[in-house]
Amino acid sequence: MADTESRTASQTQAATASEGITRRRLIGTAGATGVALGAVGAGAGYAVAASNTPEQSTALTSLGADEVMFHGKHQPGITTPLQARGHLVAFDLAAGAGRKEATALLRRWSATAERLMAGEAAASDDTDVARDAGPSSLTVTFGFGHSFFSRTGLEKQRPTALDPLPDFFSDHLDKARSNGDLWVQIGANDSLVAFHALRALQKDAGKAAKVRWQMNGFNRSPGATARPLTTRNLMGQIDGTNNPKPADADFDKRIFVPGSGSSSSPAWMANGSYVVVRRIRMLLDDWEKQSTAAQESVIGRKKSTGAPLTGGDETTEPDLEKTDAAGDLVVPLNAHARITRPDQNGGAAMLRRPFSFHDGFDTDGAPDAGLLFICWQADPLRGFVPVQRKLDRGDALSQFIRHEASGLFAVPGGAEKGGYVGQELLEG
Amino acid sequence: MADTESRTASQTQAATASEGITRRRLIGTAGATGVALGAVGAGAGYAVAASNTPEQSTALTSLGADEVMFHGKHQPGITTPLQARGHLVAFDLAAGAGRKEATALLRRWSATAERLMAGEAAASDDTDVARDAGPSSLTVTFGFGHSFFSRTGLEKQRPTALDPLPDFFSDHLDKARSNGDLWVQIGANDSLVAFHALRALQKDAGKAAKVRWQMNGFNRSPGATARPLTTRNLMGQIDGTNNPKPADADFDKRIFVPGSGSSSSPAWMANGSYVVVRRIRMLLDDWEKQSTAAQESVIGRKKSTGAPLTGGDETTEPDLEKTDAAGDLVVPLNAHARITRPDQNGGAAMLRRPFSFHDGFDTDGAPDAGLLFICWQADPLRGFVPVQRKLDRGDALSQFIRHEASGLFAVPGGAEKGGYVGQELLEG
Repeated sequence: MADTESRTASQTQAATASEGITRRRLIGTAGATGVALGAVGAGAGYAVAASNTPEQSTALTSLGADEVMFHGKHQPGITTPLQARGHLVAFDLAAGAGRKEATALLRRWSATAERLMAGEAAASDDTDVARDAGPSSLTVTFGFGHSFFSRTGLEKQRPTALDPLPDFFSDHLDKARSNGDLWVQIGANDSLVAFHALRALQKDAGKAAKVRWQMNGFNRSPGATARPLTTRNLMGQIDGTNNPKPADADFDKRIFVPGSGSSSSPAWMANGSYVVVRRIRMLLDDWEKQSTAAQESVIGRKKSTGAPLTGGDETTEPDLEKTDAAGDLVVPLNAHARITRPDQNGGAAMLRRPFSFHDGFDTDGAPDAGLLFICWQADPLRGFVPVQRKLDRGDALSQFIRHEASGLFAVPGGAEKGGYVGQELLEG
Repeated sequence: MADTESRTASQTQAATASEGITRRRLIGTAGATGVALGAVGAGAGYAVAASNTPEQSTALTSLGADEVMFHGKHQPGITTPLQARGHLVAFDLAAGAGRKEATALLRRWSATAERLMAGEAAASDDTDVARDAGPSSLTVTFGFGHSFFSRTGLEKQRPTALDPLPDFFSDHLDKARSNGDLWVQIGANDSLVAFHALRALQKDAGKAAKVRWQMNGFNRSPGATARPLTTRNLMGQIDGTNNPKPADADFDKRIFVPGSGSSSSPAWMANGSYVVVRRIRMLLDDWEKQSTAAQESVIGRKKSTGAPLTGGDETTEPDLEKTDAAGDLVVPLNAHARITRPDQNGGAAMLRRPFSFHDGFDTDGAPDAGLLFICWQADPLRGFVPVQRKLDRGDALSQFIRHEASGLFAVPGGAEKGGYVGQELLEG
């Protein structure tokens, strides 16, 4: 394996933030041009000759060789740049399995995640599905659901931040695809690498836990677009514009539990985060019948550029008071962008890091497609909940979407070398 | 849009074969090292600055900017290199729709495919889902099923090569997910680009045709591996080793209908091909319980390298007579590699160009995953059928797979500029 010391983390703000938890196998800076050259060998069977001349070293990467570190202050897969492929899977502990089995499982899972994220084979009986490929930015993230704590006799350690989300008027939730004792998020820029990890982690679960639900998602492939920081969803909207940036002064405070815990989070959640996962079906047949102008009125932004309807570019703040010649607000009162603006929500902020999904067509020809909405925050009561309460009442977008499944999970801080995720909880 | 004349098709044998039907937006040769640099702007909204110095021009490409040509002797998506994402969709003509509506539909579809493959927006009401991205090697391929011809009064033009496939003993076919009047294959290296095309083509169908079935698949992402010509499937096997190569003297004869037609193909199928599509479920829970040695005995090849069990490397011919110390054949009589060897099948050959699929888990925790087997040949009776007959009787692999759906479609030659796919059939 090549020397990592000579490499610098780069490519996006998100990759370098959060105290270097993600270190990618890059040489130089790919930057916004999308220009990328070369590759450094990594992983079993992966050997690539890179002619690394000085002129070229400003823009040197390879999709397969990109590696995210498993160990760190925070778990990977939170501030890691969006990946092309994702799997979400919830497990329930098996009948008879408790704290002891859960502890052994988290040990196995952490060991497997560390190996696979480094581009290595699983410790035993590897399926070879990822063989020849590099780690391809594989990340594995583990979380605990509300029901985990009673199953393991750890009720006293359950954060109040894990209290069930309130009912929302517009929810159409399928309980079988919601919540669960344990949650695993897998992301990678190669679909076979991601599937390989999914199967390895499912095998690790053994008799201790069974799959409760599982969802597949996707984002743009690296290099498909010159737009590096935001993506588009299946409605064609630019997504992620107002995401908090790791460089923001209050980013850590909003997204991660402090190192000392908090009023809603015990000490074992230090440097952890809470994730809300929602399968949001998009009613694309209805949406696509709307004119572009009608769609832009629903969102409050230009579809082409993401700029507010009041002018500027994607990063310009909307002028929420601006009226048109007829005296009507340019950004309507029920526009999605108005309701979700952080300064309209008492400073609430969450980091959205979604995948799109598409699971074929219903019998009426409507696509079963939409967004695997995934958002991260230090406390759901100050992140997702107040925003969703507002959206629930008055979002113009709500008639074109349907929340079909929901999960809330406590995602502890990252594991130290030699440790495993959730160790402070399970051994505390 | 940048000048295509200055570019040379490259990257894989398949990309350059078949009379240049695929011309990719590459500068220079990426080759087997996987080294790739730079990008040239292409498509609406896609603007990239490429510093194309002579030293760099030997290895210059970008995933998004890669473009495959719609027009040509053959349709795209047959010899095009494997793409990271694929959609297969079958349509049935609506009640009351006949030849006239089908003709108009194929005109619309061809026009949309040409635009989208060039990285342009759909002619009207584009959803913007692919906006900002390049064409990302998008290909769209159209075919006609057996039932199409009676629906349109074109029975006399139906090729005998489209006669229904024989029943196979091991088939467990779901008729609702099999066959269909029309078939569309979409491939791209970006999932959003592929989905965008799927929706645009579905919209073009309008009231003339309805989705009968639809399947999603994937392959490795470009750059994830240094192995350029073969891939691995979800069993971890190297796949595609014995595929005919476009450079083979008899490649065109085996894969494409001659320009004058043939005994089983009318003249309108000149330069076309027949595709057999099979949803092959892999029983991965059973497969993964086998030792590597047992798996290798089933296939007849080393799992790690793809080399025959009789030695050499992936491209070495197996020594089918070789015995071990105990006098047993090293490549067992029922080994998959022995049964599928072309010289064991009267020279039959088909070009396999599959996608893997994964549609979540069954309630028992078994993955609904496997291979969207797609094979191309000049005549199914000399390609797929004799091979599958042999596999049906004695393939050691058969206990680990299940054919769940099947389709056979006539895929005409490529459209000329100003023309559309199937024009010779529909206007003949």
